[in-house]
Amino acid sequence: RLTLLMEPLHAADIADLLEQIDSSERKALLDLYHHEMDGSILSELDESIREEVISILRPEVLAEAVRELDSDDVVDLVEDLDAEQQTAILGALDQTDRVAVEQALSYPEFSAGRLMQREVVMAPEHWTVGDAIDYLRGHDDLPEQFYHVVLIDPRMHPIANVTLGKIMSSPRSKPLAELAETVFKAIPVSEYEGDVAYAFNQYHLISAPVVDAEGRLVGQITIDDAMAVLDEEHEEDILRLAGVGDGSLNDRVFETMKQRFPWLAVNLVTAIIASLVIAMFEDALTQIVALAVLMPIVASMGGNAGTQSLTVAVRSIATRDLTGSNVWRVIRREVLVGLFNGIAFAVIMALIGIAWFGSPVLGYVIGTAMVINLVIAGLAGTVIPVLLDKVGVDPALASGSFVTTVTDVVGFFAFLGLAVLWIL
Amino acid sequence: RLTLLMEPLHAADIADLLEQIDSSERKALLDLYHHEMDGSILSELDESIREEVISILRPEVLAEAVRELDSDDVVDLVEDLDAEQQTAILGALDQTDRVAVEQALSYPEFSAGRLMQREVVMAPEHWTVGDAIDYLRGHDDLPEQFYHVVLIDPRMHPIANVTLGKIMSSPRSKPLAELAETVFKAIPVSEYEGDVAYAFNQYHLISAPVVDAEGRLVGQITIDDAMAVLDEEHEEDILRLAGVGDGSLNDRVFETMKQRFPWLAVNLVTAIIASLVIAMFEDALTQIVALAVLMPIVASMGGNAGTQSLTVAVRSIATRDLTGSNVWRVIRREVLVGLFNGIAFAVIMALIGIAWFGSPVLGYVIGTAMVINLVIAGLAGTVIPVLLDKVGVDPALASGSFVTTVTDVVGFFAFLGLAVLWIL
Ligand SMILES: [Mg+2]
Ligand SMILES: [Mg+2]
Ligand SMILES: [Mg+2]
Ligand SMILES: [Mg+2]
Ligand SMILES: [Mg+2]
Ligand SMILES: [Mg+2]
Ligand SMILES: [Mg+2]
Ligand SMILES: [Mg+2]
Ligand SMILES: [Mg+2]
Ligand SMILES: [Mg+2]
Ligand SMILES: [Mg+2]
Ligand SMILES: [Mg+2]
Ligand SMILES: [Mg+2]
Repeated sequence: RLTLLMEPLHAADIADLLEQIDSSERKALLDLYHHEMDGSILSELDESIREEVISILRPEVLAEAVRELDSDDVVDLVEDLDAEQQTAILGALDQTDRVAVEQALSYPEFSAGRLMQREVVMAPEHWTVGDAIDYLRGHDDLPEQFYHVVLIDPRMHPIANVTLGKIMSSPRSKPLAELAETVFKAIPVSEYEGDVAYAFNQYHLISAPVVDAEGRLVGQITIDDAMAVLDEEHEEDILRLAGVGDGSLNDRVFETMKQRFPWLAVNLVTAIIASLVIAMFEDALTQIVALAVLMPIVASMGGNAGTQSLTVAVRSIATRDLTGSNVWRVIRREVLVGLFNGIAFAVIMALIGIAWFGSPVLGYVIGTAMVINLVIAGLAGTVIPVLLDKVGVDPALASGSFVTTVTDVVGFFAFLGLAVLWIL
Repeated sequence: RLTLLMEPLHAADIADLLEQIDSSERKALLDLYHHEMDGSILSELDESIREEVISILRPEVLAEAVRELDSDDVVDLVEDLDAEQQTAILGALDQTDRVAVEQALSYPEFSAGRLMQREVVMAPEHWTVGDAIDYLRGHDDLPEQFYHVVLIDPRMHPIANVTLGKIMSSPRSKPLAELAETVFKAIPVSEYEGDVAYAFNQYHLISAPVVDAEGRLVGQITIDDAMAVLDEEHEEDILRLAGVGDGSLNDRVFETMKQRFPWLAVNLVTAIIASLVIAMFEDALTQIVALAVLMPIVASMGGNAGTQSLTVAVRSIATRDLTGSNVWRVIRREVLVGLFNGIAFAVIMALIGIAWFGSPVLGYVIGTAMVINLVIAGLAGTVIPVLLDKVGVDPALASGSFVTTVTDVVGFFAFLGLAVLWIL
């Protein structure tokens, strides 16, 4: 009955459903799939529960499910499984498919080679529209989805893409070479998947041939898979910026705790460094308790302004909009924004400080500290991610801690230091 | 000479180049385009400098550039221009194209109607492969890019998608209806573009027909445009989470300052609320200066843990992985993670507190406050975005301020309150 109910659902929605219910409900639901399981449900499942689901399915059902998938989906399914499950799935494939999947697994993780499907429709460069149509009609092992015919030279090097639309709207005698697309990118098999996704988005590619080190055609990547990678890259950036490891919503308490602990530990070190700065001013704090009341404001404003600059920089580095040719202009802008917003909030905070504690000099102190900290925030928020990127560290992963350390230290030091100079 | 140099560059790369140089260099470069400008360069340009570029181009050059674009690209180009430039561009179009663009502009901003192209290849449901091929060969006004033939009934309702690959690999006598795709989604013209992008990513769509309120086919959306929307939605989320308005890297200092000021002002209010909490404990702070030194640590750890939970929640709401069916499980997990990490850091911090200030009771105080604040951080970090989403506020936009207010207030109150209870 439930299988009937699920029938009209898309595999991706069934996979989401399986992710959102708890583990015992999942077991019960999967027992209903003891005859047959749609392979695409497995390939849509989040990695975090894939192993669990695969271990519940009966081997024959699993084998049957996997056989209907395209090679790229099998690779994606298999690459994160443990060795035993991997062997079971590879064993279920036909000889040719198994070789294709093992070949793909031999390329590095997160490379174009892992993302590509081996199934490509190719044609010699001298073919005409009629040749292509006859070839396609004569073959029943064509890929499920294809949008281009790739023209190849005798050494198997791809030389052009011809869209199916162009072929279908041309007479049989037309040479395919005359219909070639003007934009043509061949993707090296070792290219990082994030760069592949960038190229698809930047150049509006729909599918692109993948070539090995000798430039020979070995597969193709389609835009739906590139779009999924773009989405994952974004997820990685947003989670890393927040100091959340590469976790999933389906991870258990203990795993989640382990993912987050390191970043909280880094933050603890940061916070202790800031406390050491405060401890340098114990005398001043004992004499003027208002300093203890106001000091978190300066640090907090600096932290927020720094995060603003930093997020803009991290995002712009990811989209390749922040480059060597505009980095100085952007740094200058961020510093000036820090300066002007600093002045605005300095005036506001000085007035609040005076009204609250009745001390004009306290107002000058907090105002000046605010300007200093917001300028430094703009500077550090831009320079730190740019430098991290230069030395090959993901700026999304590490910038946050550095920038807040800077704004905390500068904020407390400037505020308390100026108080000692001007008030005591 | 420079135009020759730029010749091999893709329009999207030329647009990026124009964005990254400064305004005077841009003017100089554009002067070289006084004879001819590729329309797709204009459509790839970031909105922030599009008006500037368009105002530099000579009217004939602009008109010529726009005429070669697909209707969806003209809409995207025109929608954010001022009225005068909009009229100039619409005036350059042929009658039919102008009507199409004006029609699209009549749909709400960020809707499927703005995203779609009017150019679709459709066929009556009873056609065969041969009919389709003959039709395509007989027409030279086909869209630049198309991947499907949409089957329509006599009332112009789309009823199925047929991929070109299936058509090309079937005999002429085959009815198109027998080749229809199993996954078929028609998109309502008023649907939000973010939901359109979600559907393309979730269901691996390549193109999808768009229907009006009566269910009639009015256009189609292709995956490259959906991918661009997905990218923009991510940018919006990541920038909003950081309290950066909808700005661009190309905005000037004053604009950027205006975008960021409101979020810093909200943060100031937050910080002042936290200071008011501190001010309640002035006596305690005067008596034990160690409290002033240590209190930012508790608040900072809470803020970080809260941001971790909050970012996971915001992202999961965006990907629709956090729903009514798992929200309680996720809240429970976040609270437990807060509890266990809280206990771990409580022990660490208690030891540091004792070692530093030689007071065991100060260690108990900071440890207990740490546990309390991290539990609250997990709770607030999940519940606040979920509630905001429920009431229709973008959780990426507003959650941050609420969550840090909570963790600051709870952090200072718990730490200083416990100190008063246990030490004084
Ligand atoms: Mg899913
Ligand atoms: Mg596939
Ligand atoms: Mg993978
Ligand atoms: Mg695929
Ligand atoms: Mg990655
Ligand atoms: Mg990244
Ligand atoms: Mg770009
Ligand atoms: Mg661009
Ligand atoms: Mg738009
Ligand atoms: Mg388009
Ligand atoms: Mg939007
Ligand atoms: Mg959003
Ligand atoms: Mg999902």
